[in-house]
Amino acid sequence: MCVLILQISLDTMAATQKCYAKGSCAPGPVPEGHLRIYSMRFCPFAQRTRLVLQAKGINFETVNIDLKEKPEWYLEKNPQGLVPTLELPNGKVIYESPITCEYLDEVYPGKKLMSSDPFEKAQQKMLLEDFSKIVPLFYRIPGTKSKGEDISALETELKEKLSKLNKVLVNKKTKYFGGDSVSMIDYLIWPWFERVEAWQLKQYLDGTAELKNWTLRMQEDPTVKAIMFKPEDHKVFFDSFMAGKPNYDYGL
Amino acid sequence: MCVLILQISLDTMAATQKCYAKGSCAPGPVPEGHLRIYSMRFCPFAQRTRLVLQAKGINFETVNIDLKEKPEWYLEKNPQGLVPTLELPNGKVIYESPITCEYLDEVYPGKKLMSSDPFEKAQQKMLLEDFSKIVPLFYRIPGTKSKGEDISALETELKEKLSKLNKVLVNKKTKYFGGDSVSMIDYLIWPWFERVEAWQLKQYLDGTAELKNWTLRMQEDPTVKAIMFKPEDHKVFFDSFMAGKPNYDYGL
Repeated sequence: MCVLILQISLDTMAATQKCYAKGSCAPGPVPEGHLRIYSMRFCPFAQRTRLVLQAKGINFETVNIDLKEKPEWYLEKNPQGLVPTLELPNGKVIYESPITCEYLDEVYPGKKLMSSDPFEKAQQKMLLEDFSKIVPLFYRIPGTKSKGEDISALETELKEKLSKLNKVLVNKKTKYFGGDSVSMIDYLIWPWFERVEAWQLKQYLDGTAELKNWTLRMQEDPTVKAIMFKPEDHKVFFDSFMAGKPNYDYGL
Repeated sequence: MCVLILQISLDTMAATQKCYAKGSCAPGPVPEGHLRIYSMRFCPFAQRTRLVLQAKGINFETVNIDLKEKPEWYLEKNPQGLVPTLELPNGKVIYESPITCEYLDEVYPGKKLMSSDPFEKAQQKMLLEDFSKIVPLFYRIPGTKSKGEDISALETELKEKLSKLNKVLVNKKTKYFGGDSVSMIDYLIWPWFERVEAWQLKQYLDGTAELKNWTLRMQEDPTVKAIMFKPEDHKVFFDSFMAGKPNYDYGL
C-alpha cells in the first residue's frame, strides 16, 4: 500500500512540492529529455545541485524526500537514502553532490562552472576538500550548544578554518573563490553560508572581511537569489530539525 | 640547521631513496619540465598517484617523507603534512590523491585512465566514494584486534561492504571496475588490496569470487607489478607502523 502524491513540478523554480515519505508511491519514470532531482528543500547538499541546475538553466523536475521517514522506493534508487540524487530517463542515478554538479556541468550546455584548466580545477577541488572539514563544525557547534556542553574548542577550530578560507580570497585577490566571476566552487560552499544567521554562526565570520564580502556578493548572485530561503525560514526548519522533528514541508 | 640529503631520484622506477625527516634541508626547486611527487614508500594513498605516474609513463622524481617526524619545509608545502603531494616547476602543489590522479590524467599524454563519458566518470567517482567508506575498516580491524578488543561488528561491516563491491563486478560483467581493461578506479582502490595478506584481512574476501578474480588480474597488470611490494615487505612495515615506530626506509 502506498499513498499517491501527484506533485512533481516540471519547472526550474524553487521546489514547491511536499515531500514523499515512507509508504508513498514511487513517482513514474523520468520522461525522455528530462532530468529529475531527488531533493529536500532545506538540505544544503541538495542545494549545491539545485544551484548548478539553476545557473545552467537546465530543465528539471523535483521530487522532495522525507529524510526521516524515507520512502522504500527511494532506498532502492539510492541505498544511502541521501539527497541529492539525479535520475535520468533511462532510470540511471547519480549521487554525491559534487559528483552530480560536475556531471551537470560536463553534460549540459550553458555557462561552464568548472574551469577547463586542470591546475585551476585541481585547486578548486582541494579547496572543496578543505571546506568539507568545516561542514561538520556547522552542525556540531549548535548540536553541542543545545546539549549545554562546552563549545569553546569547536569555536576555536571553526574560527581558524574560516580564517584560512578568508586567506584564500586575500591571496587570490579575486571577488570569488574561482576568480572574478562566480564558479562551481562558490556554489558548492555557498549553502552553509546562507544558513549562518539562522544557525547562529554569523559571529564566527568576524575578522574574515574578505569572506564576509564574498557572502554579500553571493547574496546578489541571480542564481543564489532565485532559490534562497530567508534566514527566518531557515531558522524555523533548523529549530524543527534540532528538535528531532524536521518540518520538511514548512511554508508550503 | 638541517641535514642535507642528496637522494632525489630522477627515474620513474620504485622510489628507492630514504625519507626526509624533521631537520632535513628542503630539496631544491623542481627542474623545468619535471614533476616531483612527495611520497612515502608504503603509503597506499601515495601509491594511487605513483600507479598513475607509472601507467602513463610520466617522468618524475620522488621525495619520500617521514610522516612521523615531518620536515618543517614539507608542512609549508602541504599544511596537512600528508602524502601524496605533487609539485610543479613553478613551485605550485596539488594534493589529495584522487585530485592528483585526475590532474595527471588530464594534463599528460598517454593512455587515458578516466572515461571521457560523463556518466561513466560519475559512476567511477561514486564507486570511489563508496570505497572510501571501506578504507577506515582496513585500519580499524587490525588496530582494534591489536588492543585485544572485539572486532566482530567491524568484520561484519567489512564483509558486507566487500560483498557490495563484488556485486558491482557481478552486475557489470566486466574484468575490471571500469570495463574490460584497467582504468583509473582500479588503480585508486588497488593499494589496499595489495595489502590484504600482510594486514591479515585476506579471509574477508572469501565469498567474493569476482573481487578475488579482480585482485588476481590486478597482480598481473604491468603497472601494478612495477611498483608493488611483496606481502612479506608490507608485513614488516605494517608491524612497525602498528608498533608506533614506522620503518619508512625498510629494505633500503
